[in-house]
Amino acid sequence: MTATISVEDRGFTLGDGVFDTAVALNGIVLERERHVGRLLAAAHSLGIAALRARVEAAIDDAVTPEPAIVRTTVTRGSAARGLWPASTGEPTLVVTTSPWSPALLGQPARLVTATGRRNEFSPTANLKTLGYLDHILAAREAAAAGVDDALILNTQGRVACTTIANVFALTGGTLRTPPLSEGCLPGIMRARVMEIAPELGLAVEERGLAPGDLKGADAVFLTNSVRFLRPATELDGALLATASCEAFAALRHDLLAEVGIEEKL
Amino acid sequence: MTATISVEDRGFTLGDGVFDTAVALNGIVLERERHVGRLLAAAHSLGIAALRARVEAAIDDAVTPEPAIVRTTVTRGSAARGLWPASTGEPTLVVTTSPWSPALLGQPARLVTATGRRNEFSPTANLKTLGYLDHILAAREAAAAGVDDALILNTQGRVACTTIANVFALTGGTLRTPPLSEGCLPGIMRARVMEIAPELGLAVEERGLAPGDLKGADAVFLTNSVRFLRPATELDGALLATASCEAFAALRHDLLAEVGIEEKL
Repeated sequence: MTATISVEDRGFTLGDGVFDTAVALNGIVLERERHVGRLLAAAHSLGIAALRARVEAAIDDAVTPEPAIVRTTVTRGSAARGLWPASTGEPTLVVTTSPWSPALLGQPARLVTATGRRNEFSPTANLKTLGYLDHILAAREAAAAGVDDALILNTQGRVACTTIANVFALTGGTLRTPPLSEGCLPGIMRARVMEIAPELGLAVEERGLAPGDLKGADAVFLTNSVRFLRPATELDGALLATASCEAFAALRHDLLAEVGIEEKL
Repeated sequence: MTATISVEDRGFTLGDGVFDTAVALNGIVLERERHVGRLLAAAHSLGIAALRARVEAAIDDAVTPEPAIVRTTVTRGSAARGLWPASTGEPTLVVTTSPWSPALLGQPARLVTATGRRNEFSPTANLKTLGYLDHILAAREAAAAGVDDALILNTQGRVACTTIANVFALTGGTLRTPPLSEGCLPGIMRARVMEIAPELGLAVEERGLAPGDLKGADAVFLTNSVRFLRPATELDGALLATASCEAFAALRHDLLAEVGIEEKL
């Protein structure tokens, strides 16, 4: 039986909530503390008083030894009509799992640029909110173009993210990724890559990226907590250099090892 | 007992749906055909195949002779993980009602300008989607400032809407409201006002509005399907001329009569 929520839950009626997606291997949620911390910080910034102990217990209950994608959703709970004041009871907490497989690590991504823009001036630009419709429409554009993901620009025409990932460009010995002010999410894998890269001899810069910066890079890759590092090989029909970049192949191998994915499989 | 939906419903997990809010008086949904038409057009633009007959039947089932606010929600339905392709079954359809009262017509609105911006470059800028979190946060700002609603500007700093309404400015004999390209919703009440105003001797212009245009107007008012025409009397602490504008009082009376609210009460 599938779990249900009230049709008056504000997560359903107004997108009034946030979520997190993590991977569990051998019953351990990778980077669990960061994932829970980010989720709770986002909820609290919205005025949703989710309790850490309750969230952690729900995740522990849901995780099994099978490799799994663990989605944790927190909403403001059920309420009568009206945007604010939002007088609600307990926040709603839902944890669901679905199978994770190493096959998710393998495939490179071809990209198209989405026509819609991400709003870096939104108060929720850096929160993983329930409002994913713009990214769904960008993913539909990617599917219509026969490619794997869509690059989403912000209102200034600079790189924000893809529909499901942060974006990195490797140029010379420097890794570049947009700062949060460009409208991207503070990805846990993004943070891990930024921490590990200097140990591998790479400089890391948070800096605005134009689409042309991707086309001129030695390699472009996408990060998220489910696919880890995914090479991007094409943008709007133009080949990116990624596939022939040996430095990237080595980097990816090392980063995956450092993140712990290989030893844990 | 409150109705429920699956926690895997994409309306809940990803904000993948749209809704409509209308008022029913004496068992009749005002402007029902337009409301249903707009909802279905929005759903279809998202690739959600909601059926008119099913939507109309659900609304008819929910409406009683009591004055009511009728909310109709359509989502893509339940699905496994992933943004797209979105292989789902039947779309989810939920109709809920809550009491409507003429008291909702009365109160003027004081406004503050929200700090966040509405994204006129979003593919969903003109759709009443489930993603209301940015407007919830703007409404929270209004509440914190002790006022009634928040004015939301687009990324260019021009007027888009308030958290729940379209915006009109009356200057001389001309009514001005932002065109849809500014990022506002195609409000049913907005459309009615634009149709009726010429019959009352007013010119109507769809034109971008700067916040200063509101401060210099003879009157500023807000439209939506629940509160009809609501005078705005203050913006960021500065008084608007609305309360002392006799032309607006007459216009509002006539517009409410034309919309049919008085004869139906």
